[in-house]
Amino acid sequence: MASDIQVLDNGTVTSPQGFKAGAVYSGLKTPGPGKLDLGILFSDTPARTAATFSQNSILSPSVTTSRGSLNVGRNKRAVIINSGNANCAVGEPGFKDAREVVSLAANHIGVDTSEVLVCSTGVIGVELPMGLIRAHVDKIELSDDGGHDLVNAIITTDSLLKEKAVAIDVGGTTVTIGGISKGSGMIHPNMATMLAFMSTDAVVEQEFLSATLQEAVDISFNLVTVDTDQSTNDTCILMANGVAGNAEITAGTPEAELFAAAVTDVAIHLAREMARDGEGATKLIDSTVTGAYTVEDARMAARSIAASPLVKTAVYGRDPNWGRILMALGKTSIPLDESKIQVFINDIQIVEGGAAIPYHVESVVQALGRSEVYLRVALNVGDGDATAWGCDLTEEYVVFNSAYTT
Amino acid sequence: MASDIQVLDNGTVTSPQGFKAGAVYSGLKTPGPGKLDLGILFSDTPARTAATFSQNSILSPSVTTSRGSLNVGRNKRAVIINSGNANCAVGEPGFKDAREVVSLAANHIGVDTSEVLVCSTGVIGVELPMGLIRAHVDKIELSDDGGHDLVNAIITTDSLLKEKAVAIDVGGTTVTIGGISKGSGMIHPNMATMLAFMSTDAVVEQEFLSATLQEAVDISFNLVTVDTDQSTNDTCILMANGVAGNAEITAGTPEAELFAAAVTDVAIHLAREMARDGEGATKLIDSTVTGAYTVEDARMAARSIAASPLVKTAVYGRDPNWGRILMALGKTSIPLDESKIQVFINDIQIVEGGAAIPYHVESVVQALGRSEVYLRVALNVGDGDATAWGCDLTEEYVVFNSAYTT
Repeated sequence: MASDIQVLDNGTVTSPQGFKAGAVYSGLKTPGPGKLDLGILFSDTPARTAATFSQNSILSPSVTTSRGSLNVGRNKRAVIINSGNANCAVGEPGFKDAREVVSLAANHIGVDTSEVLVCSTGVIGVELPMGLIRAHVDKIELSDDGGHDLVNAIITTDSLLKEKAVAIDVGGTTVTIGGISKGSGMIHPNMATMLAFMSTDAVVEQEFLSATLQEAVDISFNLVTVDTDQSTNDTCILMANGVAGNAEITAGTPEAELFAAAVTDVAIHLAREMARDGEGATKLIDSTVTGAYTVEDARMAARSIAASPLVKTAVYGRDPNWGRILMALGKTSIPLDESKIQVFINDIQIVEGGAAIPYHVESVVQALGRSEVYLRVALNVGDGDATAWGCDLTEEYVVFNSAYTT
Repeated sequence: MASDIQVLDNGTVTSPQGFKAGAVYSGLKTPGPGKLDLGILFSDTPARTAATFSQNSILSPSVTTSRGSLNVGRNKRAVIINSGNANCAVGEPGFKDAREVVSLAANHIGVDTSEVLVCSTGVIGVELPMGLIRAHVDKIELSDDGGHDLVNAIITTDSLLKEKAVAIDVGGTTVTIGGISKGSGMIHPNMATMLAFMSTDAVVEQEFLSATLQEAVDISFNLVTVDTDQSTNDTCILMANGVAGNAEITAGTPEAELFAAAVTDVAIHLAREMARDGEGATKLIDSTVTGAYTVEDARMAARSIAASPLVKTAVYGRDPNWGRILMALGKTSIPLDESKIQVFINDIQIVEGGAAIPYHVESVVQALGRSEVYLRVALNVGDGDATAWGCDLTEEYVVFNSAYTT
C-alpha cells in the first residue's frame, strides 16, 4: 500500500489541483522578518468538506462559527486563518468578530459567507484587533503555491514548518492530497492546540470523506502529546474539490482503502512533525505498544508513555530508567499480564517477563541520544497495536512557557 | 468543627498513645549525614487497620502483599517500610522478598507475620538488596517519639518532612490522630507515589474507620498533583489501636463527624505539604473550583488546573495568563456556562462572565510571586466545590528528573 503512495517534492496544501492560498502580515503577531499572520486557503470550486474540532468545554467562537457553518452545509470554498490571537474567552464580541472575519474573507474572494470557515490560534482572552484584520484581508493574494506562505501564517511558537503532499492513482487518474499544520505546545490527544488543513482534488463521497478524516485524525493528531494540555481552538479541516475528475471514491472499495491510507500518511507526517517540534524538545519520542487486549488499550498506553513527564525527562537525560515506562503503562489501569511484558528501546530489548534482562547500558544510552527515540512495549496478551508520538521535556519548555504573555 | 481540633506541637505518627517507631540506615539509599532508609511503625496492641493502594496496573509486590494481608485480617501490629528501592518490576523474586521482609520484621518485634504490613518506595526494576535488609532489621530500635525518625526513613526525593498530629475530645476522652507522609514526584491523584501512615489511639468501629480513610484520601491525597505520573507503590495506612479507651466511635454520630474531620485535617496537611514539596517546586498552587454541577466535576476541574503544565509554568513565571486556567478547566469537558465564569488569583478577580475585566496587573504579578498561590474559578452553575493542590513547574524539575538513576 505504502508503495502506491508517491510523496511529492516540496508538497503542501496547495499541491492538489484547484487550490490556492495566500497570506499577509497584519500586525497580530509581534513583527519579525518574513512573519505572516493572516491567510486564506481557497478552492476554485466548491469542495466537500470534513472537519474535527477541539473537545474542550471552552471553545473559541471561531470554532463554534465554523462548526455551525458545516452543520448547515458541507460545500465550502475557503478557510480564513489568523494566528497571534485565539479569539477565545472574550465574551459576546468573539462571536460577532468571527462572523465579521468570515464576511470580510467572503467579500474579498467573492463567495458567499456560508462557504467560508474561520480558524484562530494564539493568546486566549484578548479580543481580536478587528481594525488590523479589516485593514489587511483585502491584501491577501492567492496563488497556486501559496500553501508555503499559509503554513507560515498559521504558526505561533512552532520552529518547524509542517507540510506534505502525496499522489495516488485512482482508476487511472492521479489524485493529490496535501496538508499543513501548526502546533508545538498545549498539545494532547483530542484535537489539542493544533490547526491542520488538508486538501485533495479527488472526487470523494461526502460521508466517506468525513469518516476517513475522523479515522486519520484518531491515529495521527489524537496520538500526539506534547504537554497534556488541550487547546480551545483545535481544528482539522479536509477539503475535497473533485477537480481531478476521478470516478467518485466511495466506502468499501480498493480505491477507498488507498485514499484513506494516503490521507492517513499525510496526517501522520504532520502529527509526527508537531511532536518533534514540541516546545523546547530536542527529540521525537515514538511510543509503540503492541499486543494489548484491544486497540483502545494500546492507544491509551502508547499515549500515556509518550506523555509521562518522568519518561520525557528520562529520554532527555538519556537515562535508561525503564521502570518509568512500566509506571506510565500501568497508570492507565489497562489489563495486562506483567510476566509477559517486553520493553525495547530503539530495538534493544531491556525487559523480558516484566523484569530487567542484562543489556549493554552504553548502547541504550547512545540510542536515547538520537533525534528519534523508539520506545516499544510488547504486552503479548492480544493483538491491539498503536503508536503515539511525543517529545522530551527540557528546561527550555519551562523557560519558554513561564513567560509567554509577559 | 475546626476549633474542636487541637494541633499538637511537634506532632507525628507516634503522638497517639501506644504507638512506637524506629529506623536505621541499611545502605539502600546513597549514604549521607543523618540518612535513614528502613523503619518500622509499631502498635503496642493490635490495631484496626484501613488502607488504600495505588490503582496502577503494575504494582509492587510490597503493595500486593500488604493488600493480601489486609484481606485476611484487619488487626495489625506493625508496618515495615524501606526507601531507596520500590521492589517493583523485578519478577517473582519481588514476592518472595516482600514476604521475607515481613517475616524479618515480625521476628524482630515478636509478633505474628499476619500482623505486619510492608511498604517500599524508590527506584523501580532493581531487586531488593535482601542482604542489607537482613543485616539491619534487628538494629531498629522502637521509641515513643520514633515517628520523627520514621518520616526520615521513608523519604526519597523529598526536601520537607511531612508530619502532623491533632487531638479531639470524644465523650470526655482525648483521642489523638497522627500522620507522616512522603512524596514529591510521580504524584497524581489515585494514590500516586506517596506513602502515608496515620495512627490513632481512638476506639473506632472497623467499617467506619475504612470509610473515613477512603473519604479523607479522596479529598486530600487524591487531589494532589505534581506531575500527573502515578506510582506503582502508593499506600496510605491508618491504624487505630484503641488505647485511648473512648466509647467506640461509630458511623452517624457527632463523634464520628469530628473524628472524620480530624483524620481529614491531618490528611490534607500531609497532602498540601507534598504539593509544596513537589520536585523543583518554588510555590504551592491551591486550585479551588466552586459552583460546579457536581462535586466530581469540581474535583476534576480543580485537579486539571493544578496539573496543567501551562498553568504551572505561568505561575512559576508570575504570568497572569488566565486563558490557560480556562483552557485547563475546559479540557476536562465538564459541563459549564462560559458566561457565568469568574476567575480569581489570590482573591483578585480577573475574569467575569468568561472574559477579562480590568484589573491591576502588578497586584496579580505580585500575588503570583507568593509562596502560596490561590487560583479560584467560580462556575456559578451548581453547588459542587473542591480544592486540589499542586506546584509550579520549574527548570529544576527537568534537571532533577533527567538524571535520577544515571
